[in-house]
Amino acid sequence: MSSIWGKDVKISIFGESHGIAIGVVIDGLPAGEELDMEEIAFQMSRRAPGGDSTATPRKETDFPEICSGLLNGVTTGSPLCAVIENNNTRPVDYEKLARLPRPGHADFTGYIRYDGYNDVRGGGHFSGRLTAPLTFAGAVCRQILARRGIIIGGHIFSVGTIFDEPFDPVNVSAEQLMQLGASLFALNNPNIEQNMRAYIEAIKAEQDSVGGIVEIAAVGIPAGLGSPMFRGVENVISSVVFGVPAVKGIEFGLGFDVSTLKGSQANDAFAMEDDRIVTLSNNCGGILGGITNGMPLIFRAAIKPTPSIAQKQQTVDLRDGRDTVLTINGRHDPCIVPRALPAIEAAASIAILNLMAEVNAL
Amino acid sequence: MSSIWGKDVKISIFGESHGIAIGVVIDGLPAGEELDMEEIAFQMSRRAPGGDSTATPRKETDFPEICSGLLNGVTTGSPLCAVIENNNTRPVDYEKLARLPRPGHADFTGYIRYDGYNDVRGGGHFSGRLTAPLTFAGAVCRQILARRGIIIGGHIFSVGTIFDEPFDPVNVSAEQLMQLGASLFALNNPNIEQNMRAYIEAIKAEQDSVGGIVEIAAVGIPAGLGSPMFRGVENVISSVVFGVPAVKGIEFGLGFDVSTLKGSQANDAFAMEDDRIVTLSNNCGGILGGITNGMPLIFRAAIKPTPSIAQKQQTVDLRDGRDTVLTINGRHDPCIVPRALPAIEAAASIAILNLMAEVNAL
Amino acid sequence: MSSIWGKDVKISIFGESHGIAIGVVIDGLPAGEELDMEEIAFQMSRRAPGGDSTATPRKETDFPEICSGLLNGVTTGSPLCAVIENNNTRPVDYEKLARLPRPGHADFTGYIRYDGYNDVRGGGHFSGRLTAPLTFAGAVCRQILARRGIIIGGHIFSVGTIFDEPFDPVNVSAEQLMQLGASLFALNNPNIEQNMRAYIEAIKAEQDSVGGIVEIAAVGIPAGLGSPMFRGVENVISSVVFGVPAVKGIEFGLGFDVSTLKGSQANDAFAMEDDRIVTLSNNCGGILGGITNGMPLIFRAAIKPTPSIAQKQQTVDLRDGRDTVLTINGRHDPCIVPRALPAIEAAASIAILNLMAEVNAL
Amino acid sequence: MSSIWGKDVKISIFGESHGIAIGVVIDGLPAGEELDMEEIAFQMSRRAPGGDSTATPRKETDFPEICSGLLNGVTTGSPLCAVIENNNTRPVDYEKLARLPRPGHADFTGYIRYDGYNDVRGGGHFSGRLTAPLTFAGAVCRQILARRGIIIGGHIFSVGTIFDEPFDPVNVSAEQLMQLGASLFALNNPNIEQNMRAYIEAIKAEQDSVGGIVEIAAVGIPAGLGSPMFRGVENVISSVVFGVPAVKGIEFGLGFDVSTLKGSQANDAFAMEDDRIVTLSNNCGGILGGITNGMPLIFRAAIKPTPSIAQKQQTVDLRDGRDTVLTINGRHDPCIVPRALPAIEAAASIAILNLMAEVNAL
Repeated sequence: MSSIWGKDVKISIFGESHGIAIGVVIDGLPAGEELDMEEIAFQMSRRAPGGDSTATPRKETDFPEICSGLLNGVTTGSPLCAVIENNNTRPVDYEKLARLPRPGHADFTGYIRYDGYNDVRGGGHFSGRLTAPLTFAGAVCRQILARRGIIIGGHIFSVGTIFDEPFDPVNVSAEQLMQLGASLFALNNPNIEQNMRAYIEAIKAEQDSVGGIVEIAAVGIPAGLGSPMFRGVENVISSVVFGVPAVKGIEFGLGFDVSTLKGSQANDAFAMEDDRIVTLSNNCGGILGGITNGMPLIFRAAIKPTPSIAQKQQTVDLRDGRDTVLTINGRHDPCIVPRALPAIEAAASIAILNLMAEVNAL
Repeated sequence: MSSIWGKDVKISIFGESHGIAIGVVIDGLPAGEELDMEEIAFQMSRRAPGGDSTATPRKETDFPEICSGLLNGVTTGSPLCAVIENNNTRPVDYEKLARLPRPGHADFTGYIRYDGYNDVRGGGHFSGRLTAPLTFAGAVCRQILARRGIIIGGHIFSVGTIFDEPFDPVNVSAEQLMQLGASLFALNNPNIEQNMRAYIEAIKAEQDSVGGIVEIAAVGIPAGLGSPMFRGVENVISSVVFGVPAVKGIEFGLGFDVSTLKGSQANDAFAMEDDRIVTLSNNCGGILGGITNGMPLIFRAAIKPTPSIAQKQQTVDLRDGRDTVLTINGRHDPCIVPRALPAIEAAASIAILNLMAEVNAL
Repeated sequence: MSSIWGKDVKISIFGESHGIAIGVVIDGLPAGEELDMEEIAFQMSRRAPGGDSTATPRKETDFPEICSGLLNGVTTGSPLCAVIENNNTRPVDYEKLARLPRPGHADFTGYIRYDGYNDVRGGGHFSGRLTAPLTFAGAVCRQILARRGIIIGGHIFSVGTIFDEPFDPVNVSAEQLMQLGASLFALNNPNIEQNMRAYIEAIKAEQDSVGGIVEIAAVGIPAGLGSPMFRGVENVISSVVFGVPAVKGIEFGLGFDVSTLKGSQANDAFAMEDDRIVTLSNNCGGILGGITNGMPLIFRAAIKPTPSIAQKQQTVDLRDGRDTVLTINGRHDPCIVPRALPAIEAAASIAILNLMAEVNAL
Repeated sequence: MSSIWGKDVKISIFGESHGIAIGVVIDGLPAGEELDMEEIAFQMSRRAPGGDSTATPRKETDFPEICSGLLNGVTTGSPLCAVIENNNTRPVDYEKLARLPRPGHADFTGYIRYDGYNDVRGGGHFSGRLTAPLTFAGAVCRQILARRGIIIGGHIFSVGTIFDEPFDPVNVSAEQLMQLGASLFALNNPNIEQNMRAYIEAIKAEQDSVGGIVEIAAVGIPAGLGSPMFRGVENVISSVVFGVPAVKGIEFGLGFDVSTLKGSQANDAFAMEDDRIVTLSNNCGGILGGITNGMPLIFRAAIKPTPSIAQKQQTVDLRDGRDTVLTINGRHDPCIVPRALPAIEAAASIAILNLMAEVNAL
């Protein structure tokens, strides 16, 4: 019981990195929604590994076959299943993988959880490759939300110690978010790109990897989404965002920084603006008591460094219970943050579509 | 749809701050568990407002009446309902409350969400008072877990800019956690208490409030709890922890700090220790691929400053749509972090009990 | 994990027959719904045992205390908790009950399921008394539905071999259903009442009991409720109706009788009637492909005879594993069908409210 | 939200009759289970339309491609996705179908539910063809249960007014059920087959169809599965069995017939048999208070006649709102009962696997 998420609109993700196919069933989509396949393909290309030097050289021609739920390009209301074949896998030294758990990976925990029957090739179901169907599902939800005036976007908030400019939480605009969504290396300050890429290249040259933070915003969200306690917007979003591998933290609005403030600094004053109630600051990230207040929804997620590095690492041999040393070969991103970004936007899109459905706003 | 949480062991929380009663139904508890009521009462007293100068002077004699699910002090396997009467409420100027949403509170969002029918007195169902039944439920789960060797505890990681010593993520012990659990102001370094209290007092004198961070650890957790993707330990814990009002962020292991590290620094090497596989560091907080690895589980949650402050604040009058100024009177904590701590420990206990049930480990 | 049901509007039922209290939390009710307490009390009185000779003489003054979710008689949108104290219990020979499982009761299965920790007094959580909070919850939902033009009602379809007239599945009217809902012994043909009561009296004189069937109809239901496969109207209704103890079967429309028909007889032809699409017959009970078609929704549920009878019965002694003979004393209905009827109407009301919420029709 | 079912082991079914593919994701299967593909293929062949004259002549080579969750024939613990291509569809007069809802089908209700965007070709997602992935999932679950000593089987209880011999609810054996499971026309009394087939042929010659009843039994089920109220065995099984199209009723044990009995007749006396507690009769179908008692679990489901018949039928034209007459051409079963049987056995298998998981019995 692991890979199904959602209440009104459910996603059911399947597949293993080196298995026959991966994919997703989306159950509960509204009927009559036209899907723009080119836009979906573009969103998936943002996540896909490419010729880009910051990413793994594995080529994925990942556009899925849509098996159901779509007729003449329009959703039927029945479950939409999208299947992506795994056609660029390489033979792997299965036995060695199964014996030597890679530090930072789920090899060891998967081994325990599934009594050694887990598919360890490429991480199996734990692989970052499973974010491809997630990104597909998110791209579908994103279009449905856009039709209702909700725009979701994000940027690379940081890679290692190099930081982009944060969103202006009050004034972030749909235009800005759409522009970011059209970029393969989304930054608020594009001047940083060269610096960031050089940093990643340097890390790569060290046979190392680096983490980072992504920041997501959603605008056009009506006030009144979410519920108190366990169906708050934070609960719902975090329960899906942690489904993206390597996420180790999430914060909304000022997040951890709010812990150092005084109430007089942190509280967002209400004011009228053109017959609409707004807040003058947006430290709460658009959420009060678990419910949206109509201001931009803002959150950040922390991504750990790619655990696959070419340096020698200490591990144990599960076969004989002895300490040993492991060297990982293969294709690995020195920094997955740019590719994690669209996956986390996708997670947010799926979450927000569910929150909309929950208050009958679809 | 908001205040029910859980899969195998579900909690259903009800009540409003100034209503007749609050409480919780716990559905799915294992049968045959003896409950130590004194210990539960103590856990609830950690959350309760007290004579302590850092807390609100409202007295709560909060020990609930247990209506069902318990026979001769032992769980029957049927739903356990605990009801706490609200007997120390004070008359409130309801009309003013309903008109002038307090900044940082859910008055405005609750008004939108419930078409103005929400009970605004004392925050209604959004009130921090609802953490009393949560803490009760957590105290029940904590005892069941302790019987299986799992000990959960936490400390005040920071208040404003004053920080306690963090947990040693490899060596934190059950003894240390139990000692913290017996304290009303839980700190790893007790020498900081005076300083922290003085800081809170100073904030209070300014008619202001302050936030902080709590850090939770759980030891004795078997490897193999949790599942990939959406039933990972992080997903499950965060989906309940954000149910504690004022939480704005959560991070596991190194959390956001891991984003600045290199893979070679962040990865936790595996090693044998007394026929057991351990990791030499614990940057992942005991979780890999959403599944516990048997090391201490570590997370932190960020708490925003109490939004109720005595200073004048700008708001709008919902009746006539005009900007106005609000002064909040009444009993308010300048810092809720010490009281939020047991509630978040409770949330963690409920989450971990569910994760145990999910892998048939109860 | 047993006593919580619902998707958008959830009920969480707690309590044991001879415990301190029983009750229900209803989570997800729409805000702003005025509740008519007298009407709710009347619905509960239909279920309550009374001076009526067909029912058990145990008096229940069952109107619950509403602890939350209601302000000035109007729902707040927060969970509504209703608690009914158990104040007419009698001391029981607990040890004997625990040793000698009563045939037809859940004593034995509860003993196995809960390792002997189940509360056996009066059946504990398995008791028919738990239909009191269910009936309360149903009465709340029924009012909300009535405000949207949906009227639910039912009648005693049969007691033993004595049958009332069935509903006319095409022409059953709101007026007819409301009239039935105002009766303590609801029959389409009131002339049968004397006969039925005499039959029950005769059974009682034999120290025996008898079962029966109830038939429920709902009118004013919009076409388009429900979903294919597992969220069909039949799936949803049956999953809650079997929560009423003693129900052993459910059928929709013609139900089992449809199995003997030909397609040309069973199919309901479509026709226009005043610009509205209707069916000329209603063999499907208003449901096609799991979805309502706008015709009256009709179902029947089979109720087994009260298992508590005063005659000697064979059982085993769980203490020593020997066959033995049991005589049950106490207060028992010779026929629970009249009291089960409002409980099953309640179950239907809760189900239909959820189905309405699911298609945003509330 | 319609086609996902399950708690610990979830199935997510997708596809439309004339779309690209249909299939199922099974999430939560235990790891390490070897699957016998030939046996699965045989179970699917029992459901598939064949050259058998009682079934539709559409050929389906339905064995699915298993895309994930299986490595070297053994479950990995990750979601298992099985995809069946639709390669024998025929072009259809889509426009006519969309205009003229077929009596007894979901065309009209699907049109309303999905605002006219539903795929009407062959019934779309409402088609009986969707029982193919259900049967696949059930065949997987059935093998896992068999390994734990639980055998599930069924027979054609009746077709129209021709009845097979019912199960002996006390003495039905694993051998008997396995033998039935190896038959394409499963009957307790094989002498009836000729008669039944002739009856179906006669109906077919009339351009008509006929319904029937299936009876299912499961033996080897431990006492203690299920929970009171809403997670009773009846609730769980019925909530999935009504997912099989055309099911209009379900009853457990004696079912509706128990309503005519007295308590002294209906109660099943307990007795010791070889150190095991049994009941001397099994009128309750192996379920008391929603929980299994260790006796054979017995239920029956009523199947309506195939709604597709070649006779002229009255319907309305959705385009212009006029009454009209419809003639359905194409390939249709005069009686789907034999093919519904394995689908309902599958539903039961999935339900029971979930009930086993819920009490940690897997």
